[in-house]
Amino acid sequence: MILATDVIRHKRDGLELSTEEIRAFAQAAAEGSWEEYQLSALLMAIFLRGFTPNETATLTGAMTEFGERYRWDEIAGPKVDKHSTGGVGDKTSLILAPLAAACGVIVPMMSGRGLGHTGGTLDKLESIPGFRVDLSHKELKHCLQSVGFGMIGQTENVAPADRTLYRLRDVTSTVESIPLITASILSKKLAEGIDGLVMDVKCGNGAFMKTPEQAFALADSIVSVGNANGVKTEALVTRMDNPLGKTIGNALEVKECIATLQGGGPKDLEELSVILAARMVLLGGLAEDEHEAARKVRKALESGQGYERFLKCVELQGGDPKSIENFDLLPKTAHTKIIRAEKSGYISELHAEKLGRAAMILGAGRQKASAPVNHAVGIVLHAHLGNEIKQGDGVLEVHYKDDSTFVAALHLIQEAIGISESEVEVPALILTR
Amino acid sequence: MILATDVIRHKRDGLELSTEEIRAFAQAAAEGSWEEYQLSALLMAIFLRGFTPNETATLTGAMTEFGERYRWDEIAGPKVDKHSTGGVGDKTSLILAPLAAACGVIVPMMSGRGLGHTGGTLDKLESIPGFRVDLSHKELKHCLQSVGFGMIGQTENVAPADRTLYRLRDVTSTVESIPLITASILSKKLAEGIDGLVMDVKCGNGAFMKTPEQAFALADSIVSVGNANGVKTEALVTRMDNPLGKTIGNALEVKECIATLQGGGPKDLEELSVILAARMVLLGGLAEDEHEAARKVRKALESGQGYERFLKCVELQGGDPKSIENFDLLPKTAHTKIIRAEKSGYISELHAEKLGRAAMILGAGRQKASAPVNHAVGIVLHAHLGNEIKQGDGVLEVHYKDDSTFVAALHLIQEAIGISESEVEVPALILTR
Repeated sequence: MILATDVIRHKRDGLELSTEEIRAFAQAAAEGSWEEYQLSALLMAIFLRGFTPNETATLTGAMTEFGERYRWDEIAGPKVDKHSTGGVGDKTSLILAPLAAACGVIVPMMSGRGLGHTGGTLDKLESIPGFRVDLSHKELKHCLQSVGFGMIGQTENVAPADRTLYRLRDVTSTVESIPLITASILSKKLAEGIDGLVMDVKCGNGAFMKTPEQAFALADSIVSVGNANGVKTEALVTRMDNPLGKTIGNALEVKECIATLQGGGPKDLEELSVILAARMVLLGGLAEDEHEAARKVRKALESGQGYERFLKCVELQGGDPKSIENFDLLPKTAHTKIIRAEKSGYISELHAEKLGRAAMILGAGRQKASAPVNHAVGIVLHAHLGNEIKQGDGVLEVHYKDDSTFVAALHLIQEAIGISESEVEVPALILTR
Repeated sequence: MILATDVIRHKRDGLELSTEEIRAFAQAAAEGSWEEYQLSALLMAIFLRGFTPNETATLTGAMTEFGERYRWDEIAGPKVDKHSTGGVGDKTSLILAPLAAACGVIVPMMSGRGLGHTGGTLDKLESIPGFRVDLSHKELKHCLQSVGFGMIGQTENVAPADRTLYRLRDVTSTVESIPLITASILSKKLAEGIDGLVMDVKCGNGAFMKTPEQAFALADSIVSVGNANGVKTEALVTRMDNPLGKTIGNALEVKECIATLQGGGPKDLEELSVILAARMVLLGGLAEDEHEAARKVRKALESGQGYERFLKCVELQGGDPKSIENFDLLPKTAHTKIIRAEKSGYISELHAEKLGRAAMILGAGRQKASAPVNHAVGIVLHAHLGNEIKQGDGVLEVHYKDDSTFVAALHLIQEAIGISESEVEVPALILTR
């Protein structure tokens, strides 16, 4: 019999917890057998005393195990997913999943909703009329068999321990812990029944990890813990100081993804999507090296196979395929307004966090997990970082539903735009792999 | 509006909390306005990050303030109490309170019950037939006016924050924190409406503080926090490696206290009681120096004034005064058994914690705060530390209610007795003031 008080005391005193102790903790969180004040005391002790990679791996595995876990043995092909730690305008999932699937990868993607200034894949998908993210196991299997990918939300039964711990961490200031973040992310990913995982760890003002040090530490932790649990895992650290691509907001981002799959997307978004998809192809053993993998993904993009798969997936998941071909059928706002440059110069900043928060205020995101979102509102960038701009040129366009939300968001939007007199060097998107 | 999450985060990050933040915490604990998982996360953060003396003083004062606080303005004389951190056979309260009162000190003593291997003043008093510790404010006032002291339990309304935090600390492994122990002890003592406090910080295997370092740190903390809250506070650190006096167990200890007040008590118990009472007299401004204070207390003891006051107090608090004069009227067990020395030599150990735990198993104490106690059972020492002893001599006598509890306690009792072949030096009882 493992007592909560003993486990708490051991971690409080800086000891490494045993496998049995960590499993008891994960089981208690999943089943509610410890009091929540005991779980939160242990979370704070873990936050302050830390976890070894071994402890984190054990916790992650146990959180997955005390819950539902998918298996796809009957479906041929490597099962590989990508996961991002979240950013502003980060919409690569909708692009890379069909591209990787077109190259032979099976992508059983479970995503979350947006929270705070970052967006969520499920909210974006639901801006497509009729699109369902609550597929049954059978429906998801059918998607995987038909088009090689499917995009769903987490069910109640997947990593229930994470559900409890995530909620408690949010209200006890124990969120920013690398071991706890690692276990939270990976416990759900392991439940997808994947062989490989490519992590996109975002870094910058618009990301959860503000500094490269934090981002690399999280990337290292995720790679080590994923591999320790039998999933080939690798991570890229990518910049999130300005939004990815040129749109923020659900339907606006879906349109940009479709444009990208049709070959007409912004370069940064296309580049990152191709790189991530290529890593998935390579991790799945479907290419000899990264050059071959990238060539395959580019071919899937340029041939329109990726786009075709996306269209079919929308149909399989209940969405209206006409809305993909005719954007007028996607949600849109009654009002738009262009924000213009106050002086001439070079765009030196498009502050991702401020723009993300502005989009949330417009209604594209939510403060609380239970709040609804507006699928139509958002921001479209007309200028990119480093662009030369003249006073009065449009920098961005706000899509809003009413004057009060526009006014509430305006100050943040204006603050987010930086214009410098001298030329601006645009840093590389990818910090490292 | 002070948010729980902000306060937790600040302490988590090692910041000094503001007065407002600490007051919000104390109020929330008293009124239940934060979730218990938030209180426990903050308790763990305080445990691991620490509190400055200033933070501890603020918390203590606030815990008292959000609750009932006695005032004795209408009663002339200095109000001074003594408090012990708890030990085995530690019964000085029953002796020093009437002695200090006989010297002119007003002693409104609020005590607790025993827990684990340590005894509690209330349990001892309740072994006197009829004795009530739940006096109303009016009844306590009458005691103070009549005999200068009264001994009661804590009411529900005194320091309710401590009630909540103490319960949570017990189940979240956040007990052994000097700031939290200080606030717990002093928040209740401040509520007594006293001007001065003498702390007896116990140190040794039978005490909460096992090492001199811990004991001195707690003593320093209590002195600093008491004085910061306007109560003249001083502390003695005293040894608790073997029991104080020669009895453990409620009625047995009451008899020993009466014997001591009648001039026939064991030397160590009498000495410590007189020293503590003298500190109370001095702290109350009723003597010029410690010699005069000790002289006054000794006079109160030798003249029988202390005993007379104790007898009157028992009567005022509903107890049967005949039981004080005739011990046959106090609870006693049907069975006693003498434990004898297995070899000749010198008593080198009478392990306080083991004897305290044995007494608890016999029924004198409790594992859980809600359990009842048996007032009759316990242990009487026939030999003291350092005594020369022959094989077969009685070392101690066990008073028990049935064979099963006797057998359950026997191993611990035998383990507690150490006999050395060479002479044993008896260390001083008082480590320092």
